[in-house]
Amino acid sequence: MTDQQPSERTRVSRYSGRGIYRRDEIYSLLDKSFLCQVGYTINGEARVLPNAYVRIGDALYLHGHLQNQMLNALLDGQTACISMTLLDGLVLARTGFNHSVNYRSVTVFGKAERVEENKAEILDAFINQIVPGRAPTIRAATPQELNATLLIKIPIDEAVAKVRSGPPKDKDSDYDNGIWAGVINLNTLAESVEPCPQLEANIPMPQHIESFMTQISLFE
Amino acid sequence: MTDQQPSERTRVSRYSGRGIYRRDEIYSLLDKSFLCQVGYTINGEARVLPNAYVRIGDALYLHGHLQNQMLNALLDGQTACISMTLLDGLVLARTGFNHSVNYRSVTVFGKAERVEENKAEILDAFINQIVPGRAPTIRAATPQELNATLLIKIPIDEAVAKVRSGPPKDKDSDYDNGIWAGVINLNTLAESVEPCPQLEANIPMPQHIESFMTQISLFE
Repeated sequence: MTDQQPSERTRVSRYSGRGIYRRDEIYSLLDKSFLCQVGYTINGEARVLPNAYVRIGDALYLHGHLQNQMLNALLDGQTACISMTLLDGLVLARTGFNHSVNYRSVTVFGKAERVEENKAEILDAFINQIVPGRAPTIRAATPQELNATLLIKIPIDEAVAKVRSGPPKDKDSDYDNGIWAGVINLNTLAESVEPCPQLEANIPMPQHIESFMTQISLFE
Repeated sequence: MTDQQPSERTRVSRYSGRGIYRRDEIYSLLDKSFLCQVGYTINGEARVLPNAYVRIGDALYLHGHLQNQMLNALLDGQTACISMTLLDGLVLARTGFNHSVNYRSVTVFGKAERVEENKAEILDAFINQIVPGRAPTIRAATPQELNATLLIKIPIDEAVAKVRSGPPKDKDSDYDNGIWAGVINLNTLAESVEPCPQLEANIPMPQHIESFMTQISLFE
């Protein structure tokens, strides 16, 4: 892992102070979530679909059904564009023009490769990325399940993070115009647990679920 | 507005029961959020960027700086792909293969057109979509601000919503394997208000902010 210079694809042109190119900072942001939006093309046209991801080393991993159109399209040699966005706040300025949002986002570019090695371990990493500690508690994947799953790796060839935080920035002449301005902070949290209606009697809630529910924010 | 048949682009092939093609249902989902991921191409390569949107009638609107690369790329005649995803829950099954998420998502395809008419009113609609009732309380846009803003309209030519809700679905043989399963419900909410540090003295919190903070969920 070496740090990177901004490329033509990743250079932030407007509000260039918001661009982050250090891999440690980008990886730290990527590791806060598990949901991305995958950009790819079909017949030259853009498509976007939400998907789970996990970062391991210098790559993102995606998986799905063997016939998944998106995963198979990504394996044709095209460059994937993966976007992850965490919405942190609504920035309410004194005029519409300066309204904004506080956010943390990452964009990754890379070319997908199919993965067969260590498939079970990597699929377990998806589960642990979503709910830490869960993978060792569930029934292991069967060879049929592994064979029915297409796993791809996207090396993080180019990446950029963008972050906005803090109060609204208004024009100097607007600060005394008598209008209320501020930030509404947003939070996404684990609100409740619904055990499966078909859960066997006498199965207690496991420790990894108890721990998960103590988080005050899902994406911190 | 007429209802649509699934197209080659929008037909849901796997879990086809999750696909929704009725415009009223799709619009109702779109109106719950204001944040989308915009898929477009630059030199034939996929790009994805988060952006605010508002739906008015049978179109989505996006806006940004006059030189915004994404908005200008969309005006070259290509078909945009707009994705909106609300993450509702983590579906924790008895095996990794059946883990899933509960979500509501919409994908829209359409070709962008530049908008000059009623620009101020449409930009106000973005503000009201994010915080209802705010637009009439802020300083009106100046002609310079309107001229510096590129507003585009994407007719909702093709669209599909996908929704998953409910408990995990495991293999019949897994229900008595002694493993805890269930759903963790997620929620995104407005957690706190931070008035601008440069707020003039004696400006009370407006009613539209008070009302906004009483919501128990941002995307319901």
